[in-house]
Amino acid sequence: MAYYMLTEDKVVDYIKGVPELSSVLGSFDSLEVKEIGDGNLNYVYVVKNAKDPSKTAILKQAVPFLRCVGEDWPLPKERMRFEIAALKKERELCPGLVPDVYHASDEMCLVVMQNLDRHKVVRGEIIAGKRFPRLAKDLGEFLAKTLFFTSDLYLDHRTKKEEVAKFINVDLCKITEDFVLTNPFEASDTNKYNPALDTRHIDAVQKDPAVKAAAAEMKYAFMTQAEALLHGDFHLGSYMANETETFVIDPEFAFYGPIGFDVGKTISNLLLAYISQDYRRKAAGEDPVPFRTWLLEQTKTVWDVFESMFLSLWAEHRDRNDPLYWAYEGGDGHAAAYRARFMRKILSDSLGFAGCSMIRRTLGLAKVADIAGIEDLEARAECDRQALEIGKRLLVGRDTIGSIDEVVGIARAVSPLR
Amino acid sequence: MAYYMLTEDKVVDYIKGVPELSSVLGSFDSLEVKEIGDGNLNYVYVVKNAKDPSKTAILKQAVPFLRCVGEDWPLPKERMRFEIAALKKERELCPGLVPDVYHASDEMCLVVMQNLDRHKVVRGEIIAGKRFPRLAKDLGEFLAKTLFFTSDLYLDHRTKKEEVAKFINVDLCKITEDFVLTNPFEASDTNKYNPALDTRHIDAVQKDPAVKAAAAEMKYAFMTQAEALLHGDFHLGSYMANETETFVIDPEFAFYGPIGFDVGKTISNLLLAYISQDYRRKAAGEDPVPFRTWLLEQTKTVWDVFESMFLSLWAEHRDRNDPLYWAYEGGDGHAAAYRARFMRKILSDSLGFAGCSMIRRTLGLAKVADIAGIEDLEARAECDRQALEIGKRLLVGRDTIGSIDEVVGIARAVSPLR
Repeated sequence: MAYYMLTEDKVVDYIKGVPELSSVLGSFDSLEVKEIGDGNLNYVYVVKNAKDPSKTAILKQAVPFLRCVGEDWPLPKERMRFEIAALKKERELCPGLVPDVYHASDEMCLVVMQNLDRHKVVRGEIIAGKRFPRLAKDLGEFLAKTLFFTSDLYLDHRTKKEEVAKFINVDLCKITEDFVLTNPFEASDTNKYNPALDTRHIDAVQKDPAVKAAAAEMKYAFMTQAEALLHGDFHLGSYMANETETFVIDPEFAFYGPIGFDVGKTISNLLLAYISQDYRRKAAGEDPVPFRTWLLEQTKTVWDVFESMFLSLWAEHRDRNDPLYWAYEGGDGHAAAYRARFMRKILSDSLGFAGCSMIRRTLGLAKVADIAGIEDLEARAECDRQALEIGKRLLVGRDTIGSIDEVVGIARAVSPLR
Repeated sequence: MAYYMLTEDKVVDYIKGVPELSSVLGSFDSLEVKEIGDGNLNYVYVVKNAKDPSKTAILKQAVPFLRCVGEDWPLPKERMRFEIAALKKERELCPGLVPDVYHASDEMCLVVMQNLDRHKVVRGEIIAGKRFPRLAKDLGEFLAKTLFFTSDLYLDHRTKKEEVAKFINVDLCKITEDFVLTNPFEASDTNKYNPALDTRHIDAVQKDPAVKAAAAEMKYAFMTQAEALLHGDFHLGSYMANETETFVIDPEFAFYGPIGFDVGKTISNLLLAYISQDYRRKAAGEDPVPFRTWLLEQTKTVWDVFESMFLSLWAEHRDRNDPLYWAYEGGDGHAAAYRARFMRKILSDSLGFAGCSMIRRTLGLAKVADIAGIEDLEARAECDRQALEIGKRLLVGRDTIGSIDEVVGIARAVSPLR
């Protein structure tokens, strides 16, 4: 089928051409469609059966430009191919943490999937002070499973290399290379600064040789280190959750990259939330300490669950391949030393990318609403300053920071609980 | 054209079907063909015009098994596709250091190229004590140019990623993964030990946790670090040279991997030659010191030329892309710090792979004739012991060894000049 852009009134006709969707949506005669996309890239339609609203799905279609900018910014619609392939792989590895895919079309650049209508996008809820009991544990599990099972520690040598080739995702990687790992560290026209943020804090990033050299190293790692299939955009806006479930969505940035990239993005986004919530809880007339304490606990939990589950999977699948190197074996203990150094390197990479992420969310084009949504520019500038300071410390200090507890300690030192 | 295996008597018929080869070979009526392949993998034919021996070429064809073992060891003949693509790329980047390609066929898995009949395979000549005045400088240049121009420091983001996908070389990488980076470090049936080598020297590799953990790290780097297009089999048997020229041949192992892999293989092979020449020069009734001193100088020269030329190319092409990160710029000095750390990491990787290479040439299946050709098993065992000791020190110490001079010092300490 040749590609065409859907609109609300064309969605039902498209669905009528996919008979197997009736098992999800029931009769096609009473479908209602509403466009709800508020992201930067795609169009997202809710499809509901008016006679039985439990029969529902999401249809997401990529268009050949960046939606938030318009047709002036072309972006290949073929990015949907990566989203479809990654969704299917992630769903296979983490069935309870990824929406069900009912139908997908590479030609039409669209996917029809589970409507998470009992779940909310996590970022907005966390901004409002809501806690998700399972969130950190589920994210740790998602990271451990998706990253372990797509790495050379599990896949056979052939499959891994073929997967690397399949997920060469040129255009979306370029967005990260530019907007996360380059422009924020330079006086780029694409940056956006809070006018109340003193220039010396910006200069302390963009003119600090150690920060810039470290950012260059993280960028080079991003471009060369094909370790595992990443989600690639693993932040609070890519999670939908409620009290009992967590779902990870929107993996169109998926590619084979450094394991620490996904892990680091979670850490940075939780720390940005932590920073923002001193002002936000006080503005809501609340004591900020309990919620901020919870956010720091989540930061630690994500890492701890990821690390322990990753190591458990490694042990569990020790016969999978390369047992000589990567197995739990009796005797000479080299594998334990190797594993310890391996996890240490992932922590280092994670903190490097977390640092870049915090800096880019402060100086770069795309902000996080946690901080950018604070209308009091002076209060926002204090958050910006803290984000830059923590980001720099994680980035430059990534090889010497020895544990996630130390990361939490840095966050508390720069942004005190009070 | 459907694939078929050539033999001496079929080569002329094949060539007659490629009219453009007449510009190289002259009339097709007086061609003589001789099979001369002594490698492990392929068949190699010299084609000469009997009426004018200056009209000559080499035809190299891959067969669907490992030649040195036979049809019991299948190996996809499509490996020739990688050799052809790599030869063309290397020739483009280093026209004076790579044979001219006259004709290539992916379908027939063959290449017709320049006959280097005024050149000798370097390994055999070095074993015999011959010096090549240009060798180290030419190898350093080949390394600098091929590795710089195929890296993210030069290629645009799209081309680099597309090249990575094109050079996914599953089967030949697997040979390296197994025979260089796994089996020698284990009690594998594929290993071959000099019977005069005391078991404790073998155990000092295969049962040393630090050596094994380090080897695992190098293997993981080999499998994940897609930095540049490697030759992939860069040892003394892959160079043909004379007094005035050096050619690099046989790049069928080419893939995008860690820059240090090619660099390290040169270092290890020169050091293995250095070790072997104490016995060999003495056995030839010569003072070994001058030739061994020359070999150490070549080791240093390869690195020094590689490093200075790589940095020069980086400076020269500073506007190529990502000038914000990788350029020589005035002012804040971060790029100088980045470049220094970048080259330090390449040295570390090079020494790690050099160490693995020295160990595998001693304990693994494929030896170097420099040492394995020594018939006195006790004398050979002393070389083996030295190779293992230097290999271990480079591998385990790779992050702390600060310069190529220190590498030469280690070689002299373990294998004294005398």
